[in-house]
Amino acid sequence: MSDLLRQRPVATPAMIAVFDDAATIAHACAFEVALARAEAACGMLPAELAEAIAAGVDPARIDAAELAEEAALAGTLAIPLVARLRAMVGGEAAKALHVAATSQDVADTVLMMQVRAAHGLLAGDVRRVRGALATLARAYAERPAIGRTLLQDAMPVAFGLRLAQAARGVDDALRLLDAAVTDHAVLQWGGAAGTRVGAGGASVRIAAQCAEALGLGQSAPWHARRTGVAAIGAALGILIGALGKFARDVALLAQNGVGEAREPLVAGRGGSSAMAHKRNPTGCQVALSAATRAPGLVASLLAGLPQEAERGLGGWQAEGPVLADLFLLASGSAAALAVIAEGLEIDAVAIARNLAAAAVGNDIGASAAIIADLLDGLGD
Amino acid sequence: MSDLLRQRPVATPAMIAVFDDAATIAHACAFEVALARAEAACGMLPAELAEAIAAGVDPARIDAAELAEEAALAGTLAIPLVARLRAMVGGEAAKALHVAATSQDVADTVLMMQVRAAHGLLAGDVRRVRGALATLARAYAERPAIGRTLLQDAMPVAFGLRLAQAARGVDDALRLLDAAVTDHAVLQWGGAAGTRVGAGGASVRIAAQCAEALGLGQSAPWHARRTGVAAIGAALGILIGALGKFARDVALLAQNGVGEAREPLVAGRGGSSAMAHKRNPTGCQVALSAATRAPGLVASLLAGLPQEAERGLGGWQAEGPVLADLFLLASGSAAALAVIAEGLEIDAVAIARNLAAAAVGNDIGASAAIIADLLDGLGD
Amino acid sequence: MSDLLRQRPVATPAMIAVFDDAATIAHACAFEVALARAEAACGMLPAELAEAIAAGVDPARIDAAELAEEAALAGTLAIPLVARLRAMVGGEAAKALHVAATSQDVADTVLMMQVRAAHGLLAGDVRRVRGALATLARAYAERPAIGRTLLQDAMPVAFGLRLAQAARGVDDALRLLDAAVTDHAVLQWGGAAGTRVGAGGASVRIAAQCAEALGLGQSAPWHARRTGVAAIGAALGILIGALGKFARDVALLAQNGVGEAREPLVAGRGGSSAMAHKRNPTGCQVALSAATRAPGLVASLLAGLPQEAERGLGGWQAEGPVLADLFLLASGSAAALAVIAEGLEIDAVAIARNLAAAAVGNDIGASAAIIADLLDGLGD
Amino acid sequence: MSDLLRQRPVATPAMIAVFDDAATIAHACAFEVALARAEAACGMLPAELAEAIAAGVDPARIDAAELAEEAALAGTLAIPLVARLRAMVGGEAAKALHVAATSQDVADTVLMMQVRAAHGLLAGDVRRVRGALATLARAYAERPAIGRTLLQDAMPVAFGLRLAQAARGVDDALRLLDAAVTDHAVLQWGGAAGTRVGAGGASVRIAAQCAEALGLGQSAPWHARRTGVAAIGAALGILIGALGKFARDVALLAQNGVGEAREPLVAGRGGSSAMAHKRNPTGCQVALSAATRAPGLVASLLAGLPQEAERGLGGWQAEGPVLADLFLLASGSAAALAVIAEGLEIDAVAIARNLAAAAVGNDIGASAAIIADLLDGLGD
Repeated sequence: MSDLLRQRPVATPAMIAVFDDAATIAHACAFEVALARAEAACGMLPAELAEAIAAGVDPARIDAAELAEEAALAGTLAIPLVARLRAMVGGEAAKALHVAATSQDVADTVLMMQVRAAHGLLAGDVRRVRGALATLARAYAERPAIGRTLLQDAMPVAFGLRLAQAARGVDDALRLLDAAVTDHAVLQWGGAAGTRVGAGGASVRIAAQCAEALGLGQSAPWHARRTGVAAIGAALGILIGALGKFARDVALLAQNGVGEAREPLVAGRGGSSAMAHKRNPTGCQVALSAATRAPGLVASLLAGLPQEAERGLGGWQAEGPVLADLFLLASGSAAALAVIAEGLEIDAVAIARNLAAAAVGNDIGASAAIIADLLDGLGD
Repeated sequence: MSDLLRQRPVATPAMIAVFDDAATIAHACAFEVALARAEAACGMLPAELAEAIAAGVDPARIDAAELAEEAALAGTLAIPLVARLRAMVGGEAAKALHVAATSQDVADTVLMMQVRAAHGLLAGDVRRVRGALATLARAYAERPAIGRTLLQDAMPVAFGLRLAQAARGVDDALRLLDAAVTDHAVLQWGGAAGTRVGAGGASVRIAAQCAEALGLGQSAPWHARRTGVAAIGAALGILIGALGKFARDVALLAQNGVGEAREPLVAGRGGSSAMAHKRNPTGCQVALSAATRAPGLVASLLAGLPQEAERGLGGWQAEGPVLADLFLLASGSAAALAVIAEGLEIDAVAIARNLAAAAVGNDIGASAAIIADLLDGLGD
Repeated sequence: MSDLLRQRPVATPAMIAVFDDAATIAHACAFEVALARAEAACGMLPAELAEAIAAGVDPARIDAAELAEEAALAGTLAIPLVARLRAMVGGEAAKALHVAATSQDVADTVLMMQVRAAHGLLAGDVRRVRGALATLARAYAERPAIGRTLLQDAMPVAFGLRLAQAARGVDDALRLLDAAVTDHAVLQWGGAAGTRVGAGGASVRIAAQCAEALGLGQSAPWHARRTGVAAIGAALGILIGALGKFARDVALLAQNGVGEAREPLVAGRGGSSAMAHKRNPTGCQVALSAATRAPGLVASLLAGLPQEAERGLGGWQAEGPVLADLFLLASGSAAALAVIAEGLEIDAVAIARNLAAAAVGNDIGASAAIIADLLDGLGD
Repeated sequence: MSDLLRQRPVATPAMIAVFDDAATIAHACAFEVALARAEAACGMLPAELAEAIAAGVDPARIDAAELAEEAALAGTLAIPLVARLRAMVGGEAAKALHVAATSQDVADTVLMMQVRAAHGLLAGDVRRVRGALATLARAYAERPAIGRTLLQDAMPVAFGLRLAQAARGVDDALRLLDAAVTDHAVLQWGGAAGTRVGAGGASVRIAAQCAEALGLGQSAPWHARRTGVAAIGAALGILIGALGKFARDVALLAQNGVGEAREPLVAGRGGSSAMAHKRNPTGCQVALSAATRAPGLVASLLAGLPQEAERGLGGWQAEGPVLADLFLLASGSAAALAVIAEGLEIDAVAIARNLAAAAVGNDIGASAAIIADLLDGLGD
């Protein structure tokens, strides 16, 4: 029941792996182990039970399809998962599993571990796009080209100015995403009603230790406070849109009547099943398709914010697949555009020809200074 | 790389299968075979080549993961698929494959075959919901209960009135969906630029025969006219919302301070990993989660409508996964609510107690007549 | 406190008037009068009181700004409005006003009266677009032009084919809207909890008479069943997208490197504050801006579907401004595109030049037959 | 043609004024004056012409309705506005107006001046909400109450914990908004194609001086880089959702079967046109209605990100009304909830009764410590 034909054209294999069943199960197991160890370190559990849990829990022994079936019935992943883990570790250790934790603790923590991993992967490709755009922008900082406004020839610009703007737009968005992940990709641990009942005065230390073991930031519980998820999702939506801006420009420049730039030739890419002569802007297609889908996905995340009471009904449960989709789309877009930005074919003759045809001279104003300003502000 | 843990809690196994890789490959193969046969029947191809294609094409021999990898590179499923099919059938038949067709013909036709299958499955569960609600509405057509407006006790209603309203809302939405599928789940066949070039005067006959073989309606090509996809998607969004209305009501009625109705007890369902005493409205959760996600997905579909020229860049490519998600979410919602509607636990004592506490008498006005009117209009 | 600078560039004056304060007040008054008369005709009220109401109610005496202030405080228009009307008519007639009605009856009925008026206006402009496109499509049914797919030159098409597709897309959407308005722009009258309490056995006759007087269809109450509003909104979203498809094509064809078509010259339109030589596709801008906004607005409407109980909290109250925005945007788009379609400047020389440059011959396949098929299906 | 009946129930009068025609015209005039003075200060214009402009420009002499009509025709506000200003100042000064500027410079700068003003107003009410919630949270930090998850009674919490979570959610969102406004509510000045052509080496100084005069931050031109607008809009969407979370909780607590808290009594508020006994959660209605609409509006903003070339067609033109709507909705929500938070009626008896009925003891775990942690992180 795989659906790679839907996922793979829009996402990188590495990003698909971040959100697949194996990763989900591994993270959920890691949470239960880290929580038990943190609880033991703070005196809530005997240390040997925590170690028995760590030794006994084995994600590889869990059948994802069976687990999914039971999770769907139960309405939560944690119930069938914890049952399996208890059976694995047995005895007293079984009772020491999932102490002072609730289903949503597992779901949210797993999601945030995936967010951290996904962000790392994604940021790499986004930085490639940004870096290549900046390099090109500098190289073409003095090259006059016709600027276009409202899809009409307007006045001259440096060809590099548009690329510098794209670089800065991508950078704006990446900063938002970096900040959102740093601030909000944090441990979820609150227990049944978000009070960490049973942990006594050790609750803060347990949380700190558990978060550290999982590579996550610390936080008070946030079961019904979903502003962090929304911030991460919104930043992804803005990033996908900023990437889409560059894709839109390449696609417009690659039109036959324009011809100023086009995607690099990649074997097996951009062909047509009906027209051998065509060279399709396939990377732009991936990025623009992502930009078509992203706004609605962000809306879906925001729609869940007015959660009910301590843990809501339906709202937060909607977030995981949507956040995954946003990362998947962003990964496909960034990877496709990294290849394009690094290999963009620029046709200086066409640029000069189109500028001359517009008959508006070649005064590019302060283009070079503006490019420098735009690139100066870029993150490293 | 399965992601059943994300899909299964929101969708039925049967609906997941409608959109999985195996179904996609099977439908794509069926399209190529049906097109070749229709072209042969109208004299465009020798009949024996079409039969060689029909005999040689074997979806089971196609590795989905490899195909997905190549499709992602190519930017379209059809290129690597047709290459495989040509290798399978060999010789002259290879050249007779995919004649006068383009990649989008395959993609859109496959999507519409999936829409037909998905609609059939979904409508079954929706009719179960509607039927069970109607039965309950009739049974409680005279039972006074407190009506609630703006989440406050208001004036008496028949308990069945709310259920009749839900039944009619679901029915309104199903009618929209039925009509959209009937009108717009049609063959896509236009060739490279939507002119059916190469088919000569036989183009209409070829289209008719091909559509019939695939169980689809006929249509002029619609590569860049996506109103039909949007209509199907919007109807799904409305349906998911209408189902969500019933789920919202059950969840509110099941609150401890209200207690008038709750989901039936299903073994393994509605438990809590932290609180053994709880009975969670898990089916409502599925339906409300779907209703949280659907509006954004519909927005994504509408965003793609202003396609460029004969076949657009990014817009239509965004639709397939979104339409699949809408059907997946609708399936999960309808299946969960069918179980709830058929087994809803209604507490007559609580109904009477809450009505008495409101101290507004028990005049239910024309409730019974309105219920009859609402149910009278339901589809069969 | 007018905001015409925001509204007028996106909407026609006539459509702005449909939703302005004067129209809202007039419709609300008309509802109260029609309801009183219908109740009198069915014996619920003395006829002379209904006539006193009809004689005494005068929308022109109501100050919109004061009413808005009180409505904002009260949380509903009906409370301060009915207070004013009671003061106007005085005596026994005052008590005969708003009998068996609730605030939402007023709000929803007013909205549906506005929908009927808005639909009439809008459909006129949409039919102009459709008709002009059909005429052009027929005129260019045999003219070879280069077809473009994925923003690249592809294979020849008839120039008229793209226009015929646009005509059919607009027609598809208008049919959806016509049907939604016919089915769902209906009277709302249910009273406090939707039971028409107090109306006894006459409730159906009262509803029928009231609906007829207001030019609306009949219906059982639909306070918390918002599928009709969603259907109307979704159809508007699809229509705006279908109009946007034509605008996108004109804007692309008008690019300096393409030059096959452009908006007609209209005095005062399409200039640039900085570049006297430019001719901007200003009508396309209006239509594409509308198409950018519409999907999110439709999502907002769908988000409100899972209403609570008999009358919800927040969901339905969100609909009025959103539905108004959709009609406003649709009106601006349709009016702008009607002018464009009726005066589209087509450059046959550029068409021939671009086709020749593509070097793919001039076989337009079955274009003419497909155009005929597309136009044949158009509404009158 | 006012539409206060639609705007006022969802927005404060002060916020409506921020975005009304008078404010728009005043800001546009201020931009032209500030630009002329900055250009004069840097030697681009004679100082006396700039002063003649400053002396002659009078926003009060501009008829908004006429201007709107011409702006709609022209497709941009700047063309008819600059024509009026030139007529006002006359002579050489007329030619010194709008030098090196383009229509979008005016539109974007006006929008950002409105954003600054709107943010100031809004933040005041949001801080009131946050402060009142924090005060209540501290007061109820030890009061046991039943916690509710998935709309079912779960385990005890401190009554103040839910309020502290709401305070922190609102604070999370306000931080995002503050940062977005600080970073992105900046001057737009780029001229026809974004190169500041004509300003020579003085361009940076002109921009700095102009920005300072208008109370805006500086920036390179951002005509087609809309990440800043998207960031502001997304932060507003998250804020409206975070406010909605508190409203949802109040509405649920105010249900007759729960009764733990309700909105304060405000004269003229929360009544029913049909039921004198009711007390409707009218402030919550405003906030929840805003939360229903906001996600779609954010989606509309994100949809415009992939702008075309130097200045796009349709995308940025869509932003102004949408950003205004988000601020309007946020203002209404924050103002309504400030009143509620400052006067929330809490029923200790009901809290105790509901907790006892749940029979889960009264161990509120680390509630107090978590509340302290949540409040400790709040902005001042």
